[in-house]
Amino acid sequence: MKPINDTFLRALKREQTEYTPLWLMRQAGRYLPEYNATRARLGSFMGLAQCPAAACEVTLQPVERFGLDAAILFSDILTVPDAMGLGLSFVAGEGPKFASPVQDEEAVSRLFVPDPADKLRYVTDAVVEIRRALNNQVPLIGFSGSPFTLACYMVEGGSSKDFSTIKKMMYTRPDLLHRILEVNAQAVTAYLNAQIEAGAQAVQIFDTWGGALSDRSFQEFSLKYMKQIVDGLIKEHDGEKVPSIVFTKGGGNWLEGMAASGADCVGVDWSVNLSKARQRVQDKVALQGNMDPMVLFADEETIRREARKVLDDFGPVGAGGHVFNLGHGISQFTNPDAVKILVDEVHSYSKQLHARDE
Amino acid sequence: MKPINDTFLRALKREQTEYTPLWLMRQAGRYLPEYNATRARLGSFMGLAQCPAAACEVTLQPVERFGLDAAILFSDILTVPDAMGLGLSFVAGEGPKFASPVQDEEAVSRLFVPDPADKLRYVTDAVVEIRRALNNQVPLIGFSGSPFTLACYMVEGGSSKDFSTIKKMMYTRPDLLHRILEVNAQAVTAYLNAQIEAGAQAVQIFDTWGGALSDRSFQEFSLKYMKQIVDGLIKEHDGEKVPSIVFTKGGGNWLEGMAASGADCVGVDWSVNLSKARQRVQDKVALQGNMDPMVLFADEETIRREARKVLDDFGPVGAGGHVFNLGHGISQFTNPDAVKILVDEVHSYSKQLHARDE
Repeated sequence: MKPINDTFLRALKREQTEYTPLWLMRQAGRYLPEYNATRARLGSFMGLAQCPAAACEVTLQPVERFGLDAAILFSDILTVPDAMGLGLSFVAGEGPKFASPVQDEEAVSRLFVPDPADKLRYVTDAVVEIRRALNNQVPLIGFSGSPFTLACYMVEGGSSKDFSTIKKMMYTRPDLLHRILEVNAQAVTAYLNAQIEAGAQAVQIFDTWGGALSDRSFQEFSLKYMKQIVDGLIKEHDGEKVPSIVFTKGGGNWLEGMAASGADCVGVDWSVNLSKARQRVQDKVALQGNMDPMVLFADEETIRREARKVLDDFGPVGAGGHVFNLGHGISQFTNPDAVKILVDEVHSYSKQLHARDE
Repeated sequence: MKPINDTFLRALKREQTEYTPLWLMRQAGRYLPEYNATRARLGSFMGLAQCPAAACEVTLQPVERFGLDAAILFSDILTVPDAMGLGLSFVAGEGPKFASPVQDEEAVSRLFVPDPADKLRYVTDAVVEIRRALNNQVPLIGFSGSPFTLACYMVEGGSSKDFSTIKKMMYTRPDLLHRILEVNAQAVTAYLNAQIEAGAQAVQIFDTWGGALSDRSFQEFSLKYMKQIVDGLIKEHDGEKVPSIVFTKGGGNWLEGMAASGADCVGVDWSVNLSKARQRVQDKVALQGNMDPMVLFADEETIRREARKVLDDFGPVGAGGHVFNLGHGISQFTNPDAVKILVDEVHSYSKQLHARDE
């Protein structure tokens, strides 16, 4: 069933829209007092992510407050390796930690594709609950980390500045890393398909760390597996096409390859010029992005001006498709009022642009 | 006077060489036991940088140990803001700190161009001493941070993950940031020219944080000022051309602009494919780079194979010029033996390639 506001889905399919839709990566997050209140009630980040009712509550908060054009499932990319039994925990101020990092042949051989209906049931339950609560107002985006990005955490055992452990594996035991990535790709495919079957109307693959790779390694260790996932995704559900988005932070060198992945849309960060990016992908896919999240720390006039620059850079929509977003997740220190201004400017200014286009 | 081994200088000028020269960013550093011994003797990082005899000693260590094709002055990019009186200190485990960050109109108005003959005398003294000690075996590279990269530390007061303070200034008070950058550009020009007059035979501008900028901001707040510096550099000294290198980490989107900066060479990180980069800059400048420093954590066979890939990616030198380097500074956890292998492979393999070229 089509949502009442299907602008986001139409932009992904490069169909005409009255204005440029927007959502913000990490839109349900710590910059919102109502999010912090819910999280405090639940006690921990994973407690929140694993409680469908609470995940539903925080998913809807930014949509209701700002009138965004899509909701995104509140969850974490590390739910998948957690379901593989690697023992995820979040240490305050240090980020995620895995009790059992995957660093040798034996650990790799123990990896398995978790059944989403079993260990990840809390995620699909949240999707069902969110869809019910959204009441078809706007579409719901499902998501996952990319196989390479998940592998970064699995091999390093947590966050890393230089990715020395996974890169050592990549350079000396590429066979081991390929086995991890193969399991991850199958796991992510099953996971995203379960989200789609539960009601996710579009999906995004977050390749947060693909940009740390060399040109050649990106194709072999990240893009290849994202492509494999996109190939395996359910393309239509409930009578509607389910579009997919691939986003590699720092992936500006590889837009052509990402556009050829089979995904409907490529997300880009702010280091990329949208006009040039559009030429490079030749409007074969929609583009999502790409305002610097730090613009939201500025005054109203600046936020409006910078938002217009992003829209102007994309230019007349024509045969292309544009979803406005930040180039990366919104900062926890953002003032929510800044987001209100951004939403207003993107909607009102793009309405003029789209009217001029016709 | 030409150094006995002038391969590096000739590659920068895109002249024929018998092999591809190499040096490594941060080659005099903590991965070398002899460096750690000298540093321990001097007590602190800045103590080491400010003692010309000790700076000379550590500058020569990697050149002697590995037979590299260039020495690079041992110093820090923050010597310039330190000479502006901002109170630099290094806190163990936290990186550099400035006691007086530059965050408002008043602080900006107090900035001045330090006279290199005064507060930065220890740097030019080190250059003189290093040239004497090198005894013309290989050329000496002088360097500085880019105006934007220096401003990042000056405004943030130290390292930053999101550059929120400087970006807020950039978006809301671009006039203030432009004044900082103008002072920095003049200071860096004077500083590099003083290094050249003291004996530096090539110079590199390190734009470590330019990659954090959006496309438009990069041109306006980083590239413009690097260009201004290159314009103001002494082009010939002691009867020899003094080539310049600009390096923006994460600058893969902007190679054409950097190639048009007037610099003789553009440094690139490992996310860039050298063959494509060469097409984009059309051999109008030499290229420097770009092996992933993490390759040095691998076994001998892998190091040799990856080094050959970089050389093969650049391809037959022809009208171009290639200086082999890492795509970023060498990690402090590198085994020095790995560097020995790298130097051997780059020299021997490129010798075959260059012979085939002729």
